[in-house]
Amino acid sequence: MFVERIDRARTAMREREVDALLLSVGPDLPWLAGFAALALERLTMLVLTEDGPARLVVPAFEADRVHDPEDLLELIPWQETDDPAALVATALGGAAGGRLAIGDHTWSRFLVALQSELRGSSWTTAGTVLGPLRAIKDDDEIAALGRAGAGVDQIALALQSGEIPLIGRTEVQIAADLRTMILASGHSKVNFTIVASGQNSASPHHDPGDRVVRPNEPVLFDFGGTTAEPDGHPGYCSDTTRMVFTGTPPAEYAEAYEQLRRSQEAGVQAARVGTPAESVDGAARSVLHDAGLGEYFLHRLGHGIGVEAHEDPYLVAGNSEPLVAGNAFSIEPGFYIRGRWGARIEDIVVATADGPRRLNNSSRDLAIVEA
Amino acid sequence: MFVERIDRARTAMREREVDALLLSVGPDLPWLAGFAALALERLTMLVLTEDGPARLVVPAFEADRVHDPEDLLELIPWQETDDPAALVATALGGAAGGRLAIGDHTWSRFLVALQSELRGSSWTTAGTVLGPLRAIKDDDEIAALGRAGAGVDQIALALQSGEIPLIGRTEVQIAADLRTMILASGHSKVNFTIVASGQNSASPHHDPGDRVVRPNEPVLFDFGGTTAEPDGHPGYCSDTTRMVFTGTPPAEYAEAYEQLRRSQEAGVQAARVGTPAESVDGAARSVLHDAGLGEYFLHRLGHGIGVEAHEDPYLVAGNSEPLVAGNAFSIEPGFYIRGRWGARIEDIVVATADGPRRLNNSSRDLAIVEA
Repeated sequence: MFVERIDRARTAMREREVDALLLSVGPDLPWLAGFAALALERLTMLVLTEDGPARLVVPAFEADRVHDPEDLLELIPWQETDDPAALVATALGGAAGGRLAIGDHTWSRFLVALQSELRGSSWTTAGTVLGPLRAIKDDDEIAALGRAGAGVDQIALALQSGEIPLIGRTEVQIAADLRTMILASGHSKVNFTIVASGQNSASPHHDPGDRVVRPNEPVLFDFGGTTAEPDGHPGYCSDTTRMVFTGTPPAEYAEAYEQLRRSQEAGVQAARVGTPAESVDGAARSVLHDAGLGEYFLHRLGHGIGVEAHEDPYLVAGNSEPLVAGNAFSIEPGFYIRGRWGARIEDIVVATADGPRRLNNSSRDLAIVEA
Repeated sequence: MFVERIDRARTAMREREVDALLLSVGPDLPWLAGFAALALERLTMLVLTEDGPARLVVPAFEADRVHDPEDLLELIPWQETDDPAALVATALGGAAGGRLAIGDHTWSRFLVALQSELRGSSWTTAGTVLGPLRAIKDDDEIAALGRAGAGVDQIALALQSGEIPLIGRTEVQIAADLRTMILASGHSKVNFTIVASGQNSASPHHDPGDRVVRPNEPVLFDFGGTTAEPDGHPGYCSDTTRMVFTGTPPAEYAEAYEQLRRSQEAGVQAARVGTPAESVDGAARSVLHDAGLGEYFLHRLGHGIGVEAHEDPYLVAGNSEPLVAGNAFSIEPGFYIRGRWGARIEDIVVATADGPRRLNNSSRDLAIVEA
C-alpha cells in the first residue's frame, strides 16, 4: 500500500516541480508511510526526494516505535545533542536548495530552523502535492470511513432516543459521555464533541461549558473521532451533527428546521461526480436563501474527510474544482440566529459513479426528548 | 493577569528586537491571552506589535467562542472567502517587513502563506521571546502544577497497590484505564499514556500495543494530562513515571532499579537555583555511569513543564543556563536494555529559594504486584 502511495506522491511531485517532501506531525506521514510522528519538540521528519530511499530523521531512542511494515524507510537516528535540521539538510542531498514542500501541520519552529539551514531553497506546502491524492479514497478507505460513520450513528441514536440524559445536565457532562462513547465505538481518538444548548446553538463551534440543558430548547451535537486500526494503518475520521429538542419545538423553529433538512438533502443530491464543489454549496445554500434563512448560514457547506477531519475538497464558494469519484466530504448546512437558537445537520457523503452515498444514516428528523 | 503578561512579552520583544508576535495553535496563546485557537484549517492568529491593541484575526463564525475576560483583544473577523494571511499582514501595520516571531506550533501551511504575503520580513520563533517568560512559574502556576501532580499521584497509587489489574491484560487496555482516570482526576485532556511491559520497557516512548502483561516482568507507566481550569485560564500539565514488577524481581533488575532510584534522587537534589541545567543532568547521569548503566540512559534528564508538557528549561548536555526560582521540570532518568527490560522514574520538581520541591509524591520504590 505505502510503496504505491510513495510512487504516486513522486509522480505528483514531478508534476508540481517539487524536489522534496518534508513531513512531520499530522496526517500526511501516516497516510504515506503508516507511521505517525509524536507532536513533541524532538523532530521526526520524513525526507522524500524524487529518487533514492525514503529517509526518516528520528530521535534515536524513538527508532523502536517506527512501524515500517513494507521496509521502505532508511532511518537517520539523532542523539539528544545533535541538530536534526542539519540532518534533514544532509538527507536532502541534491534536493537541498531546490523547491521543498513542508508538511502542512509541521510546527513552524522546525520550518524556521530548516529555512535557516537551507537558505537557497524555495518553499511550498505538502498539501499542494498530497492533498489531491488524499482526496480520492480507495475502497478500503471508504470502508474505514463507513465504519467510522456507523460508530457515531449509534451515538446519535442514543441521543435521539433519550438514552443519554440531557435535561438538568451541563454541556460538559454530556460531552464527557460522548467522548467515552466515541472511544467505545471503534475510535482510538476523539476529535471534537460540540454540545451547544439553547442560545449556544447559535455559535457553530461552541465549546461545551457549564450551561445546564433546560426543557424546551434545542441542543446541537457535533462529534467525531479517528478510528482505531491495526499497527501501521492510519485511522479514518467520523463527523456528524444531529439536533435534539427538549420538548415540543415552537412552530417557528420546527419550520426553520424543516427548511434546513431540505437544504441538507439538496446538498447531498447535488454532490455528484463532475459537479463543481462550489455548486454543491450553492445548491444547499439556495434552499435556505429562498426560505429567508440565507443570512444565518454562516459557513461553507462542507469539508473533505479522511485521515484528517478537515481536508480537500472544501465545498465553498470559489472552489470550482469538480467532484470526482472517491471524494468524501461533509454536507452540513446550518442556521445560527444570535441570542435565540441555531441548528445544523451533517452527514459524510461519498461521490460515486452511482451518485452520492451517505455514510451517516441516523434519522435527520428533529428528535424530541421530553423531560 | 493577561495585561501583565502582554506587558512582559512586549518588554521581551524589545530586548530581542522582535517587531511582532504571531500566535496561533499551541500553548502560547492561552498563556498570553486566555484563549486557545482551534487546530483546524481556518486561521486564528493573535497579532501583537510593540504598541497598539492586541489584534485577533479569527473566523467570523468563531468570534463568539473567544474568551477575552480582560477586554484586551481587537477582533478582526474573517469570512469564509476572505484571505486570513492578508488580514494578518494588514493587522501588522508598520511591523510588516520587520522581524516577526511565529508561534512555535503554528502550522507550517500558515507560515508559508504569511511568508508569501510578507516578503520583506525576517522570521524567528515566538519561543525565543515567550519561552524564558513561561519557564518561570508564579505561585498560581505552581499551585496548578501541584494539583496536576496530585491527580496523577492517585493513579500511580492505584497501579502500585494492584487496584488496576495488570497481568493478563493488554497494554492498550491498561492505557485506556489510565485515560479514564486522568480525565476523572481534574484533567480536561490526556497528553500521553505509555504502558510498556516486559521487553517493551526498553523503548522509552513505546506506544501501548496488544502485548499482554505476564507474571514476573517490569511494566513502565508514564502518563499525564492537562488540568481543567475555569474559562479563560489555561490548564497545566502533569507527567509522572512509575515502575511495577509483576512478581519478585530478579536481583539484577532490583539492583539496577536501586541505582536508578539513587540517580533520580541525585538529580532532584542537584536541581537548585543557580545550578546550570546540564549539571543537573550530569548529577543524575554520573550515578548511572558509576553503576555501569550509563550507556543505557538514552535521553536527557528532563524537560520544563507548564501549559505545555515539554517546554523550557531542558535539562540536557549543552544547556548551561542556570536554574532560577520558579522553574518547573521533570527529573526522569532511565535505563533501557534492548531485548531485555528497562525502567524510568519521573517526578516534576520546582526550583525554589528553599531548594528543590517535588510535585509528585507517590512511592518511588519498585512496586511489586503478584498474580
